[in-house]
Amino acid sequence: MIKIDLTHTINKIPLEAYKQDVKTINKAINNKTGLGNDFLGWTSWPKDYDKEEFERIIKTAEVIKANYDILVVAGIGGSYLGARCAIEALNGLFPTNKTKVIFIGNTLSSNYVHQVLNYLKDKNFAINVISKSGTTTETSVAFRLLKELLISKVGEEAACKAIYATTDKARGALKQEASQKGYESFVIPDDIGGRYSVLTAVGLLPIAVAGCDIRKLMAGAYDAMIEFDNEDIMTNSCYQYAVTRHYLYNCEKSVEMFVTYEPQFTQLGEWFKQLYGESEGKDQKGLLPDSATFSTDLHSLGQFIQSGTPLLFETILMIDEPNYDITIESDKNNLDGLNYLAGKKLSYVNKMAFEGTLSAHVEDGKIPNIVLTLPKMDEYNLGYLFFFFMKACAMSAYLLKINPFNQPGVEIYKQRMFKLLGKPGVK
Amino acid sequence: MIKIDLTHTINKIPLEAYKQDVKTINKAINNKTGLGNDFLGWTSWPKDYDKEEFERIIKTAEVIKANYDILVVAGIGGSYLGARCAIEALNGLFPTNKTKVIFIGNTLSSNYVHQVLNYLKDKNFAINVISKSGTTTETSVAFRLLKELLISKVGEEAACKAIYATTDKARGALKQEASQKGYESFVIPDDIGGRYSVLTAVGLLPIAVAGCDIRKLMAGAYDAMIEFDNEDIMTNSCYQYAVTRHYLYNCEKSVEMFVTYEPQFTQLGEWFKQLYGESEGKDQKGLLPDSATFSTDLHSLGQFIQSGTPLLFETILMIDEPNYDITIESDKNNLDGLNYLAGKKLSYVNKMAFEGTLSAHVEDGKIPNIVLTLPKMDEYNLGYLFFFFMKACAMSAYLLKINPFNQPGVEIYKQRMFKLLGKPGVK
Repeated sequence: MIKIDLTHTINKIPLEAYKQDVKTINKAINNKTGLGNDFLGWTSWPKDYDKEEFERIIKTAEVIKANYDILVVAGIGGSYLGARCAIEALNGLFPTNKTKVIFIGNTLSSNYVHQVLNYLKDKNFAINVISKSGTTTETSVAFRLLKELLISKVGEEAACKAIYATTDKARGALKQEASQKGYESFVIPDDIGGRYSVLTAVGLLPIAVAGCDIRKLMAGAYDAMIEFDNEDIMTNSCYQYAVTRHYLYNCEKSVEMFVTYEPQFTQLGEWFKQLYGESEGKDQKGLLPDSATFSTDLHSLGQFIQSGTPLLFETILMIDEPNYDITIESDKNNLDGLNYLAGKKLSYVNKMAFEGTLSAHVEDGKIPNIVLTLPKMDEYNLGYLFFFFMKACAMSAYLLKINPFNQPGVEIYKQRMFKLLGKPGVK
Repeated sequence: MIKIDLTHTINKIPLEAYKQDVKTINKAINNKTGLGNDFLGWTSWPKDYDKEEFERIIKTAEVIKANYDILVVAGIGGSYLGARCAIEALNGLFPTNKTKVIFIGNTLSSNYVHQVLNYLKDKNFAINVISKSGTTTETSVAFRLLKELLISKVGEEAACKAIYATTDKARGALKQEASQKGYESFVIPDDIGGRYSVLTAVGLLPIAVAGCDIRKLMAGAYDAMIEFDNEDIMTNSCYQYAVTRHYLYNCEKSVEMFVTYEPQFTQLGEWFKQLYGESEGKDQKGLLPDSATFSTDLHSLGQFIQSGTPLLFETILMIDEPNYDITIESDKNNLDGLNYLAGKKLSYVNKMAFEGTLSAHVEDGKIPNIVLTLPKMDEYNLGYLFFFFMKACAMSAYLLKINPFNQPGVEIYKQRMFKLLGKPGVK
């Protein structure tokens, strides 16, 4: 499905030389013997996911769509980015689906939280609170406030029916509260970390509420799982991507700029940044993941990419077929001089912007480019893409000899914040 | 107004050593003798701006607010980022002002353009098209399509009244069309480049339509202009910021991460990235400008910043007083364990997240941090901040011996794209 073009990487990528390493790591992933092997549940998830729960997610989404105008998702990190990026990638930035999905619990900004609560005052909304422990500060604070607002609007009984909890299957504060109050609950599996969780209930419920077909999403992930269960670097595009970024990293490139030509994929860049930054940014190693949306950002970061400090390479995600197209018409005055484009499709112009930029950056700028192409952006291809990036990320981190599944660095700021806030038990 | 804290930069910044360089460059800015000296109009703009036009912008904004539900701004780069970041920073992400401002002309994506046009079909909208030449591809294509839609809805006469052109004062395709059709017009000054244009009509008209007080915006910029017209590095915080980032760049830091703790400042990061990336990213030099919104992105890029490749420093923008605040209440069950925060303000928790993160990144991570603090985020302070960053940017680029006001690298992709598209006259 995905095409990878490695002819613009400036450096010739010695795929063959990675043959044995890739084989060994692939085995470690399959046998679950690598670092962080407790968190490899996502590798077989598109086959092993809980089918019963999946059907319940679809039914619940129908109930939410039928009864509420807005679903407020409270979550942070992996409990936020996957759903948001999928919904924007599929529905666009001016969506027409009925039930709006908005996000909270991903910030401690009183300005943001105030505005969301104010906006919800006269709205008919349900809540999906997503937290493994139920004690994540950002999410729990927002959930307390949201719950209070909802109860004041509709009473406790109706509020409890409008709250959906995605959390641990047995333990933790949120699970306990859900059991006590009777919230409908969904499971965050023990062996899938936040940034690999978009295909679990964490992502699936909000994505389904936004009107997207999660069966197709899972079908795409399933096909990617089958396709990339292949230890041969010469034929596995997912591992080729991992090896290429690892090789470029060793060629003194320290930043990977993830680029798309669609504004509705901007949040996909944010998901990508969490996946790679949190998986690889350890032991003073790893590529800094960055992202841009062209041609918009060619009028912003373009100058730096073209001629600034040569510290980055680009990974471009192109889509063959746009979901919508527009033909540029002729204009009798032609003051803007655009008549040379008359009769052309806008998607064609966008593609020429990509080709022109590719040659400007690679030939003039000597900036390595990896080009990935998907046939279309729909649920199937997005599920496929999610799996592609997750599996490539595991391979990449293992090539760096790093555990792709922990995030010890994130705990440091939390502990220091808890201490300042006087949290009981924190020294 | 702005406070700069240089006690977390790991490296001691030798401000004194820059004394003479700063003096010389300050003189070159004032006497307009430095590189790119044709584009220094912004340095005295808060005093020299066209007062008559300014009043006309305010009146026009009132007319637009009274007659339309939406203002569609067509522009790219500097003709897009300033207005968008100002409106979001001031009105937030769930704004309550009457007239909505949306953006087009900043992409060639047929998906995005289709969605915006579809959204506008049954809306009562005006257009502000912003382009110096009137031939910028992204903007001109969108403007053609928008105009066609508007004429089909309201007829040519009403459409011409609903179109506002911000363009060259005398020449160019858009100026010509505006004169022919009678569009109300505003001026992009000859001596102010796109990324320094937010305080001209380019930014001011959309910002005023969004209900923001542009008199206060200009007052803040004016006070910054007076304050930072000071050649003494020991007392000029704006130049201290410029010198510090230059010094850290020379200490092998290659990325500047601009960080705020407010989601509504996320676009301010995009404006920042254009300003610095396009001004400095030349001759294989310059800091890659990046941005993040905490604590959201602590659950994404936080791990990399804390423990990944040590290639970056952070510039944190904090706001002393939030516009809104919320008190965290006690909960009788306290399942989430948050009662230790009961009675505390959310803004206080956000500030402790900042302090905890600062110490985690600086003390544990050895990541240099520059901390900027503004008393409040309102029009006055934003105008002040815009000027602060623009002036610091000029100083920074001159310290690198780079022309801060051109962008030759952006032309390369355009020429290659034009060639592929068969634009007349392009070889």
